[in-house]
Amino acid sequence: MSDRDLLMIPGPIELEPSVLAVLGERQRGHLDPVFMKRFSRVLKGLREVFRAPTAQPFVLAGSGTLAMELAAANLVQPGEAALVVNTGYFSDRMGLALTRHGAEVAHVRSPPGAAPSLDEVKKALASQKFKVMTVTHVDTSTGVLAPVQEYAALAREAGVLSVVDGVCSVGAEALDMDAWGVDCALTGSQKALGAPPGLAVLLAGPRAMAAWRARTQPVRSLYLDFGEWLAIHEAYEAEKPSYFATPPVNLLAALDVSVGLILAEGMPARVARHVRMANAMRAAFKAMGLTTLPVSEGLAAHTLSALYYPAGVDAALVKAVAAQGVVIAGGLHPELKTKYFRVGHMGAVGANDVLATVSAVERALVASKAAVEPGSGVAAAERALA
Amino acid sequence: MSDRDLLMIPGPIELEPSVLAVLGERQRGHLDPVFMKRFSRVLKGLREVFRAPTAQPFVLAGSGTLAMELAAANLVQPGEAALVVNTGYFSDRMGLALTRHGAEVAHVRSPPGAAPSLDEVKKALASQKFKVMTVTHVDTSTGVLAPVQEYAALAREAGVLSVVDGVCSVGAEALDMDAWGVDCALTGSQKALGAPPGLAVLLAGPRAMAAWRARTQPVRSLYLDFGEWLAIHEAYEAEKPSYFATPPVNLLAALDVSVGLILAEGMPARVARHVRMANAMRAAFKAMGLTTLPVSEGLAAHTLSALYYPAGVDAALVKAVAAQGVVIAGGLHPELKTKYFRVGHMGAVGANDVLATVSAVERALVASKAAVEPGSGVAAAERALA
Repeated sequence: MSDRDLLMIPGPIELEPSVLAVLGERQRGHLDPVFMKRFSRVLKGLREVFRAPTAQPFVLAGSGTLAMELAAANLVQPGEAALVVNTGYFSDRMGLALTRHGAEVAHVRSPPGAAPSLDEVKKALASQKFKVMTVTHVDTSTGVLAPVQEYAALAREAGVLSVVDGVCSVGAEALDMDAWGVDCALTGSQKALGAPPGLAVLLAGPRAMAAWRARTQPVRSLYLDFGEWLAIHEAYEAEKPSYFATPPVNLLAALDVSVGLILAEGMPARVARHVRMANAMRAAFKAMGLTTLPVSEGLAAHTLSALYYPAGVDAALVKAVAAQGVVIAGGLHPELKTKYFRVGHMGAVGANDVLATVSAVERALVASKAAVEPGSGVAAAERALA
Repeated sequence: MSDRDLLMIPGPIELEPSVLAVLGERQRGHLDPVFMKRFSRVLKGLREVFRAPTAQPFVLAGSGTLAMELAAANLVQPGEAALVVNTGYFSDRMGLALTRHGAEVAHVRSPPGAAPSLDEVKKALASQKFKVMTVTHVDTSTGVLAPVQEYAALAREAGVLSVVDGVCSVGAEALDMDAWGVDCALTGSQKALGAPPGLAVLLAGPRAMAAWRARTQPVRSLYLDFGEWLAIHEAYEAEKPSYFATPPVNLLAALDVSVGLILAEGMPARVARHVRMANAMRAAFKAMGLTTLPVSEGLAAHTLSALYYPAGVDAALVKAVAAQGVVIAGGLHPELKTKYFRVGHMGAVGANDVLATVSAVERALVASKAAVEPGSGVAAAERALA
């Protein structure tokens, strides 16, 4: 393995050099004016990335899973019902987080690679009085992109708060909290936001904040309570000193640089770039005879591809591709774990990365005697990128 | 403010250049062999830093407060009683964390600057059946160093689990979990461990792990449950791939470098260096006529100094010292907030830092017309360091 190998897993991802550079700057204090300005810019910038001009952003030291639990902890009180629109491993996880905070959880499920239909979700929403409905925008385990806009509209109709787990989508997939009526969305720093891992990011819209304010029971965690963080985040946004727990200064500096790059590119252009790169990846994999785990093109994410191993090939492929200089990931969904692999393509991803990845997979497949026409994948990627 | 100003608050702190350098390295994945080796070394090294050869280490993305809540969440079940040996702001916080997880919390309190006597703690321990007793080793708000060894012995005698909040002590103050019979100790990365903020660190000894295993009720959080992390940490220690939530790869790389430096220095030498630096600081402040918030020398921490403003001086001193090139901190304890300031001296701290800090405070005091003999502080520091 070389330090110049390409990191193409669905997070952590290759970072822009300027994001890495700011990480190694001398240590600043959490009340340093330069840091306060950065944190302020992060909070304001996230509203643009999530398209949520009236939402309250929270950025905490933690993983994407902590962000998921942050939503669960604050938006549901013990005994209240939550509907999980379940598209895989991470939807199951959201259900587990909700359960820990006392919610009564119901799932509307689909087979791996699919997503519940709008009718199924509508029916589920009508089956009892739910407080919240959660959706995994992109399930990192299956590469399924859920129709969040349509689901959110159904939740709104039913008077149910919608929570979007955007861990593998925000900063790459189209998302418009405001226009779509999404009440809460969240992610981790190491995915399409293009920063290192270690930050939990959540935006709570006005209805979500109102639901939190109307609680009659305390949040079952100190660290996860909006109430401990709200004034702190308001102060940092105004570049004023404040303290609850020490913010992860260095990671926030990196996120500041990355959010700056995202806004400079512009979200529509960034979404379009991800679509282009995903299409090129998929054209190449299709030309190599591989089948995606998502059962239709419309259900396939633009941040990662999940692909079944072809006949005669197994999980050893991941190591064989690494030996070609590109790091990809194995399967994660418990039912199919050994049957598929995953390639991330988000953040700073460009045509060079697509070509290198497609070629590394192709070379590894050819070496493993899979029925792949040498050069077919790279040729298809080139055509798609032309 | 210059980027070469000295950061002398009680965390984040000045870092060793090699710790900063590894932060800015290219992004690695969480299953990268180099990263797995680093994480493994961190876990093994922490056992040496905490002197806890049989403890289970946990390192999570989060702040020191998250580490405190990690102890509360796993070691106490709803309805069980916890005794907080309360020496200030952060002891109060431990009480709040315990309450969120359903504990019945009792406090044995002392006035700011003091610590409950052994008799008081003994009496409190005998007053009812407690599951755990928590102690703040060094309260960052007051600079009080609690007699953890003696308290822990009392807890052991009473058959109560002892939890040491070592956020402002571990890596600098003497602590021997094993010899002292401390069952659980925790800290954050940005204090005396000498890394950037963003990592919650906790070591659970055999009795703490047994108490967690004997739980009859689920931990009230997914992210905070030892059960979600135990197998992951065991796998990483064995340098084997595993996944629950993405670990903060870059921060763990920094902690690996820092723990390596700590072990190379050796904990006894490191503790001695902190004592020497603290003594020099205090000799200087005493020579300038300042009074420490801790009411006796034996109660004064070696990681920070908390000092009352002299007559005629107020919180503007903190800004005046910053203007001299050294960043110190204001008060934090709610009752005394505006009456004192704090100077951190931990981690990579050396004689140069002590001299610069003492001189900056001295110059600021002289400029503010306080009754300070110019040069007295620096002279005292030099004598103490000689």
